[in-house]
This record gives sequence, C-alpha cells and structure tokens, in this order.
Amino acid sequence: MRDVAEQFSALMSSIEPIGRTGSGGYRRFAWTHEDRELREWFDAEAAARGAEVVPDRAGNLWAWWGDPDAEPGVVLGSHLDSVPEGGAFDGPLGIVSSLLAVSAAGTVTKPVAVALFADEEGARFGTACAGSRLLTGALDPARALGLKDADGITMAEAREDVPATDPEALARIGCFVELHVEQGRALEAPVGLATEIWPHGRWRFDLAGQANHAGTTRLADRDDPMLALAQLVTAARQHAGELGMLATVGKLSVSPNAVNAVPGLVQAWLDARAPSEDLLLELLARLGGDPSEESFTHAVRFDRPLATRLQDVLEGVPLLPTGAGHDAGVLQQHGIPTAMLFVRNPTGISHAPEEHAELDDCLAGVAALTTVLRELAG
Amino acid sequence: MRDVAEQFSALMSSIEPIGRTGSGGYRRFAWTHEDRELREWFDAEAAARGAEVVPDRAGNLWAWWGDPDAEPGVVLGSHLDSVPEGGAFDGPLGIVSSLLAVSAAGTVTKPVAVALFADEEGARFGTACAGSRLLTGALDPARALGLKDADGITMAEAREDVPATDPEALARIGCFVELHVEQGRALEAPVGLATEIWPHGRWRFDLAGQANHAGTTRLADRDDPMLALAQLVTAARQHAGELGMLATVGKLSVSPNAVNAVPGLVQAWLDARAPSEDLLLELLARLGGDPSEESFTHAVRFDRPLATRLQDVLEGVPLLPTGAGHDAGVLQQHGIPTAMLFVRNPTGISHAPEEHAELDDCLAGVAALTTVLRELAG
Repeated sequence: MRDVAEQFSALMSSIEPIGRTGSGGYRRFAWTHEDRELREWFDAEAAARGAEVVPDRAGNLWAWWGDPDAEPGVVLGSHLDSVPEGGAFDGPLGIVSSLLAVSAAGTVTKPVAVALFADEEGARFGTACAGSRLLTGALDPARALGLKDADGITMAEAREDVPATDPEALARIGCFVELHVEQGRALEAPVGLATEIWPHGRWRFDLAGQANHAGTTRLADRDDPMLALAQLVTAARQHAGELGMLATVGKLSVSPNAVNAVPGLVQAWLDARAPSEDLLLELLARLGGDPSEESFTHAVRFDRPLATRLQDVLEGVPLLPTGAGHDAGVLQQHGIPTAMLFVRNPTGISHAPEEHAELDDCLAGVAALTTVLRELAG
Repeated sequence: MRDVAEQFSALMSSIEPIGRTGSGGYRRFAWTHEDRELREWFDAEAAARGAEVVPDRAGNLWAWWGDPDAEPGVVLGSHLDSVPEGGAFDGPLGIVSSLLAVSAAGTVTKPVAVALFADEEGARFGTACAGSRLLTGALDPARALGLKDADGITMAEAREDVPATDPEALARIGCFVELHVEQGRALEAPVGLATEIWPHGRWRFDLAGQANHAGTTRLADRDDPMLALAQLVTAARQHAGELGMLATVGKLSVSPNAVNAVPGLVQAWLDARAPSEDLLLELLARLGGDPSEESFTHAVRFDRPLATRLQDVLEGVPLLPTGAGHDAGVLQQHGIPTAMLFVRNPTGISHAPEEHAELDDCLAGVAALTTVLRELAG
C-alpha cells in the first residue's frame, strides 16, 4: 500500500486535467460535462474504497461506509465545482483529504460518509451552496429550477433530476466536518479550526446616467455613471479599511458598453463581510445610494461542543473566523453540529489559478482529519 | 404631391419599426436582418424616385440620377446602421433628407446621387466607417473580413459579398455633402456647417491585479485593479476638463467578473478627442500607464472652396467643429471635396433612445441641402 503522500498526489493528479483552462486555472461549473466527469470520478474512487454511493434528492452524492439508517453517521466532505478560473484546491482538497482520512482511520464503530456537495460556488446560476441549501430547504427547489446561467439555460434544463429537500438524507448526518484550503493569510500553522463565518451580504448598485455620444457631448452636459462608479469603488475600500472589514466591487455591467458612448447605466455589485452585522449596515449607510440587497447571510457560529472535542484531540490547533461561505455553514444553520478545518494558504491567493497549498500542509490536514474521524466515529 | 413636411414624416415613420428595441431605441447592426431590410427600403425609395441603385465593391449603395461615368456627380448621403440602443436620427436623418432634397431640387445639369454607406457605426465589428474606409482603401479588405462580432462571427461570414476597394465608384464622386443630426449642444441655429473633425483616438488600458477571494483576502494583501480603474476614470475626466477636450471611459471588461472575487484584470477603453493632437498626447502623458492605441484619427479639415460656396448660398450659416467621426471625414481624407451640414439637437443627446431633432429644424435641414444641391449640380 502506498503511503498517504503518494495517494494524495495521485488523487489530486487524477482530476487535474478536468476543466483545466489555458491559464492553468479551472472552470468546473455545476451540471456541466466537467462536473459530471468529476462526479463519476468521485463515485469510482469511493466505490473502490468500499463505499456505497447514493445521491440525495437535492443532487449531492453520499459515499457511505456502514448503515446510516441504523445510526446517524460522521460525515466528512466538500465540493468539486469551481469559480471561473478557480484554483485546484478550493473544494478538491476537502474531498481528497476526506477519502484518505476514511481509509487511514481504519475500523470505526459508527457509520461514516464523504459527502460531495453540488454547486457550492454558485458560479453558474449565481446562488452559492445550492446543493446544501436545496438539501436543507434554505433554497426553494421551485426557485432554484428557474435560475438561469449566462447562456439563459435554466437549472431545470441543466440538471437531469428534479431537486427537492431531503429530510431522510439530513437525518443520516450525526455531525459534519469539512476540510478546506484557507483562502487568506490568516493561518501561520499548517492547520486551523474555524470558529465562525462572518455575516456576509451582496448588494447591487444601479448607477444611472444618460447614455450619450462620447465625441460630441460636452463634459458639462454629461451625466456619466462611470464617475459614480469610481466614487463607489474608492469609498467602499476606504470605509472597509476604517471599519476593519472586507468590501469588494468585483462584478460590473456597463450599458451600452461601447467605446464611443457615455454609459447610460453602470451596475456594480458590492460584496461585504464583517465581524458583525452592525458593521455591514454601517458600511452601507456610509456608501449611501439605494442598492438592492441580493443576498444576506447572518453570522454562523460553528457547534461549540464539537469544536471543543476537536480542540482536545488536535492539541494547540489555532482558531480562526472566516469571511467565506461554505456548505458547512449551511448545515450548521440547519442545526447540524458542524466543524471546519482549514489548511494553510501560503500566499493567501484563492479563486485564482495561483491558489496553492504545500504538500506537507495538505498531509497535516489529512492527518488532522483522520484524528478527528477516529475521535468522532471510533 | 404632398408637401415636404408630410413626405419627411412619412419616410421617417416607414423605417421606425425596423430594429426598434423595447426601450424605444434602435439596434441596426451592419449585415444583419435589420440592416438588409433598411437597404431594401432604400433601394425601393430611390427607385420610386427614378434612380438607378447600384452597389459598389465595398458594399455601399448608390442611387444615381444621371450618368456619373460621363461626368463626376454631386453626392449626398449618410448611413442607416446604429449603435446599440441608438437613436432614430443618427444616419436616417441624412438619408431621408437627401432623398427629399433630390426631389425638391428639380432639374439639375450634373449627375446626382444619394449614397448609403454601410457599417458606419462599427457597432458590430468594432471598426467605424467600415463601408467608406473599404471603398477608399483606408481599411484593408483582408483585415476587415477577419473582424469578429461579439458572437465570434466574422465579417466574411456576415456578408454575402467579398468587399474590395473601388476606384471606379470613387471616380464618380465630384463632391460629397453629408447632412447629420448634431450630436452635442453646439448649435443654436437650426442648421450649421462643419469646419473640421477633431483628432480622435482610442486606447485600451489593461489594469492588471491579482484575482482573489473577496471573502478572505485581507485588504492589505490585495492587488485590486478596480481601484486603478477608479483612479483612471476620475483622472481622465479631471484632465479633460482642464485641457478643454473630451475623454470618456465607456467600455469595460472585468475578469473574472464575479461578485465574490477581487478581479485579476480590468480592461478600460479611453475615447479621447481634442481640438489638437498635442492635447491628446498631453492627456495620455498625464494619465500615465502603458495603454495600447487601438485607433488614432488625425484631424480632418473639410474642403475650403466647397465650404466657401456653401457659406455663400446658406447665408449666415454658423460654423462648428465636431468630435464625431463620419464617412464624410473618410472621403475628405481621401481627397474628395466634402462638406457636412448639421441639424440642431435640442438636448445634445445622441447614441441613445432620447436622441431627437425638432421637425422644423429637420425641414430647415432639407431646405439647406436642397439649396446646396441646386448650387452644386444646378
């Protein structure tokens, strides 16, 4: 039997070509050919390790060892889909580490699963954690089916199944532990334990002006929304710095978006995350305008008793909050005891081709997850 | 016979439904179904007035009265294509006014034409005045055929013909007069005479940063090109105001353009126009960076003897420069004596659904063009 380092590298390499782009990044959108290939890979790898792989009614895959209908099990897992030009570790690191941890943990007394959550990034249909939200009912299936991708294809058309909330699948989860690459530079140790997910919101600013001819309209006669955009971007950064939070304008839509036209409309999306909801509201008050709230996620505190058990077995593990949403947060909000482990990210780059974690840190993650699994299911 | 006002309104109304969008604007891109419908309309209207309509090898249409191979003729004309969400007057006003002026001028001694130039706006393939540039050779036909639209369709695929420079068609043009709606608020009188087209350039700024996760990357660790965009937009406006010129950032491309990602790249296109080329260079020097020059058009001075004749017959006509490019500028640069008449734009709005000219001003334009035609061809 090969050692864990070899197995880890072999598993990561085996999915390396799937959805890889010319830049070395990944485009693995939900319910695409690439996504199906990754799901088939998961199915085969889990089956090869003796699991029974079953989908739930929401479209997530569950590789079970033991009978979770007799007793709720210990679930590890993550996702395999990506953002546009995403990295190799966001999602796959958790799936690969979970498969290896199950093998390494050896004989346990409780049922164990690795869950592959569908459509975590929401890159295609604009709704993050769609798989876990459908599972718990946080996302209405009828609404989800009508979501459209950039080509106008609905989720209903993209999927083969008709998703639904699945109380039976949820009842099988005794607790859930997700391992994930850390996405900033918040970790000095190889592995950390998450305490909470910051509250997080998305707002759309519709900056309206008057479309006009760039070659003939006097500056004094212009109502140019690009100037309002410049102010918004500058103010969001400045106030976020003052308030100790994160604010990002990462998506724009310009109309008519022609070189020789003063735009009539610039739409700008603000992503903001903070240690408290009050700070989010303070940022919005400072920015002014009348943005549309596209999503708002309250703070999620991970289960305290579970975190205490993990701190006991992972001696000296550092604690950290995160600004990123995860399926683990969705399950915790549904009342399932949930924990998250993070693996150090040396550059803090994520959601980009340069995303990276050192092999030794990844192996420390697998070892920590194995220790946790033995503790919870042993 | 109906009076000119009725004929004018009837002609404008007859093309009103073609390419009209939900906002009341127009989308009449070159070599589309809408464009073909407009060309067929032109063909029928010119033929009904006794003209012989022939295409040139570049794809423009020429409605001739008289034999231009015996003697070069007096050519009026404009275009019928539009920018996205363009207005009803930019282009069509010149075509309709030209058809009416030919009828109103009565018997003349020289050959007369109305030219319908193809693809003036360049909205589909990104190259303005493609029809007149192909005609004169300012645009290489081989290069034009490879231009792609937003759907990846090449001009070669979109067109039925294979365009070429056409010296024979050019030799038929004794002089050219284009009537056009004014596109700013530069005119207090109903009709004005253009003196020159300002020099004009387009530059692309590639603002590079580091794509990253919006929820986890500390502000201090970010290299966010959206901040550079905000600076560019603000600086371009400020310096243009100081320098007495026009500068516009009207088109952007953001990558990956995701709500939850710090962008890795923002591309911004600068459109700048000024009374002198020195001012354009001064603006670029002040903005810094290393933009790619996508186009640069030198100043065009319209033919002085022709302008003098027009000033004589249009007593008291005000003179004005313009920042907008036109087929008239392309022909003048090719050495053809060329003039332009502008019809007052009360709001200065153009390239937008709200573009408008009052009926009385339009009729003053037809009358002026009729006077000019009698002078030049009489």
